[in-house]
Amino acid sequence: MTVKAYGSLAGDKPLEKLDITRRAPGAHDVQIDILYCGICHSDLHQARAEWAGTLFPCVPGHEIVGRVSAVGGHVTSHNVGDLVGVGCMVDSCRECSECHDGLENYCDGMIGTYNFPTSDEPGHTLGGYSQQIVVREEYVLKIRHKEEELAAVAPLLCAGITTYSPLRHWKVGPGMKVGIVGIGGLGHMGIKLASAMGAHVVAFTTSESKREEAKALGADEVILSKSQDEMASVAGKLDFILNTVAAPHDLDAYLNLLKRDGTMSLVGAPSEPHPSPGVFNLIFKRRSIAGSMIGGIPETQEMLDFCAEHGITSDIEMIRAEDIETAYARMLKGDVKYRFVMDIATI
Amino acid sequence: MTVKAYGSLAGDKPLEKLDITRRAPGAHDVQIDILYCGICHSDLHQARAEWAGTLFPCVPGHEIVGRVSAVGGHVTSHNVGDLVGVGCMVDSCRECSECHDGLENYCDGMIGTYNFPTSDEPGHTLGGYSQQIVVREEYVLKIRHKEEELAAVAPLLCAGITTYSPLRHWKVGPGMKVGIVGIGGLGHMGIKLASAMGAHVVAFTTSESKREEAKALGADEVILSKSQDEMASVAGKLDFILNTVAAPHDLDAYLNLLKRDGTMSLVGAPSEPHPSPGVFNLIFKRRSIAGSMIGGIPETQEMLDFCAEHGITSDIEMIRAEDIETAYARMLKGDVKYRFVMDIATI
Repeated sequence: MTVKAYGSLAGDKPLEKLDITRRAPGAHDVQIDILYCGICHSDLHQARAEWAGTLFPCVPGHEIVGRVSAVGGHVTSHNVGDLVGVGCMVDSCRECSECHDGLENYCDGMIGTYNFPTSDEPGHTLGGYSQQIVVREEYVLKIRHKEEELAAVAPLLCAGITTYSPLRHWKVGPGMKVGIVGIGGLGHMGIKLASAMGAHVVAFTTSESKREEAKALGADEVILSKSQDEMASVAGKLDFILNTVAAPHDLDAYLNLLKRDGTMSLVGAPSEPHPSPGVFNLIFKRRSIAGSMIGGIPETQEMLDFCAEHGITSDIEMIRAEDIETAYARMLKGDVKYRFVMDIATI
Repeated sequence: MTVKAYGSLAGDKPLEKLDITRRAPGAHDVQIDILYCGICHSDLHQARAEWAGTLFPCVPGHEIVGRVSAVGGHVTSHNVGDLVGVGCMVDSCRECSECHDGLENYCDGMIGTYNFPTSDEPGHTLGGYSQQIVVREEYVLKIRHKEEELAAVAPLLCAGITTYSPLRHWKVGPGMKVGIVGIGGLGHMGIKLASAMGAHVVAFTTSESKREEAKALGADEVILSKSQDEMASVAGKLDFILNTVAAPHDLDAYLNLLKRDGTMSLVGAPSEPHPSPGVFNLIFKRRSIAGSMIGGIPETQEMLDFCAEHGITSDIEMIRAEDIETAYARMLKGDVKYRFVMDIATI
C-alpha cells in the first residue's frame, strides 16, 4: 500500500513529502494508522547523514502513536481500534539471550524503526513521519493514557524509555538522591520519572532560566552547573546520575558528586569525545561510568503503564509536517519545551 | 623508640638508611617487629615525589608482615608472638558509613600507612621499610599462612587486596569469563585469585613472552593484546575485566570485549589520562567503567584467609634493603616476577 510520508532523499536536502510503500500485514503483523510522531535528535542526525550509514530515502521517526487499522491472522495481543505505540525498534532476532531477557534493544539483530535493513521496499525500514506503519505484534505497545493525551505520549516511546530504563536498572527509588544532567527532551522526562519513582531529584542545568522550569517538572533541587559553590553543595551526595547531555563536557565535575559505589549513566552520545574522565575519581569511591540505550519491549510497556498510572506525559509543542525543517532548526538551538511532535494528519 | 628504616629525604635523593621514632604502644596498639615488606609501585612514586604532597623524610612500604612484639592493655585480638600483617592503612575515622560498612579504604579520614598526617613524630606516618611499626589493633590482620611463606605473603597486603576486592565486589565466580589486563605485581595476583574463585580467566598481555607464564599462574586463555585476531576472538564474551595497567592505553579495545552489563574495573591510575573512552561502547551494551581502591579491613582478612586456604601467595624476588634503588630501577622496566620484597633483617 502506498502512503504519504516526510523524508529526505539526500543528506544535504530538506525533508519533503514522499510516497512510500508499506507491506500488507502478515500473519503476525499489526497495521497502524499513525496519529502522532515525536521528533528526536537522532532523526535530524540520520536525515542529514551526520552519522555514518544513512540509507535514502530516509523517513525518520521512532516515537509513534496510532490506532490499529488491521491485524494479521495470528495476532492475538492487539485488535483493530486499539491505541498503540511503536518505539525505536520493529524487530530483533527473538532467539538470543538479550531477546530472551526482554532486552531486545541490546540484540545484535535489532531492527531499528528506520534506517535498518528489511526485506520490504526500499530495502530498509522507514519510520513514523508517515501515515501508516506495519509492525510485528511483539514490537507494538499498548497505550492506556487518555485519548486527549496521545500526542504527548508519543515522546515516551524514545525519550521516555531511554530515561526510564536506566533509572529502573540502577534501582532509583525512595531514599535516593538522583541527579539529572541536562533539561531537554530526555532530561525533562528523567526529572518527571525519577520524581514519580520517589527519589529526591537534583536537576543540573547551565541556564539560570531553567531553574524554575526544572522545579515545575518535579526537581527537588536545581543546581547551576557553572556555579562551583552550587556544585560543591552536592559533592559526594548523589546515589545515581542520569546524564542526558550529548555535547562533550567535563564528566569529572559530575563524577565528584557521586557517593561511594555511585553510577553515572550516559544516555547521550557526543559526536566528539568527552574530555577523558579522571581515573582517580572512579577509584577513590568505587564509582562507575555506564551507558544505557533505550530499553527492551517489556520495560517499554512497563514504562507506558507507569506513566499512565502517574499521569506522566511529555511536554510538547505540536508541529505540522511541512514545518519539520523549522522544528529541526529550533531543536538545534535548544528552542523547544521539550519535544516537538508531528501531527500526522497534516501530511 | 628509635628504629632503623630506609627512606628518602627529598624527591631527588636516593633512599638511605635512617633512624626513625616509633611511639610506645598505647592501650589499643599492637607493636610489630617487621620481617618483610613488599615493594609497591606507589612507594617509588611517593619517595620520588612524583605525586603531589610527599612529606619527608618518606619511609615507604605498605605490604608489611611481621610478628607481634608488644600489645597495649586493651588489645584483645592479637597476642605477642602472633604473625600479622599491615596493609595500606593504619587508621580511619571509625565513625562514618564507610567505616561502619567495613570499607575503611573509602573513609575520607583514612590514614595511609605512610605519608599521611599523624600526631606521632615526625607528623606523618612512616611505612614498612623499617624494623618496627606500631598500629591500632583494628588495622592489624592475622596471617594464617605457613611461616616459610611469610615473605611471599607480604604483597597480598596491597597487590592481593587491590585485586581481590573488585573481583569479589563484582561477584566473580564459576561460570564467569573474567579478563585480567596486565601481568605484573597486581595482574599476576588477579590471575591467581580469579582462578581460585572458579572463573574462566582470560589474561591479556603485550608480550608474547608472558603467554606461558600467564598460563602457569592459572590463566585459561592468554590473549596478545596487539593481535587484532586474538582480541576479536573474545569480543563481547567477558563478564568482567580487571584492568591493572597504569600506563595510558586504549580502554575501548577492552570495553568491546565485555558482554551486555559487563564492567571493566580500573585499579591502576595513570599519570596522564587514558585516551577518552567511547560513549557508544558503553551505551550499546550497557557496559560500565569503574574504579576500585585497595579494600576494607574485613575483606583484607577474608582475602588473607582465602589465600591461606587456597595456598596462594605472591611470586616474589627477595632483596636486601640496600638494593632498593636497584629494585626501583628494575621495577620501572617491568623486570620483576612479580613483586620485590625487602628482607627487613638486612636493614
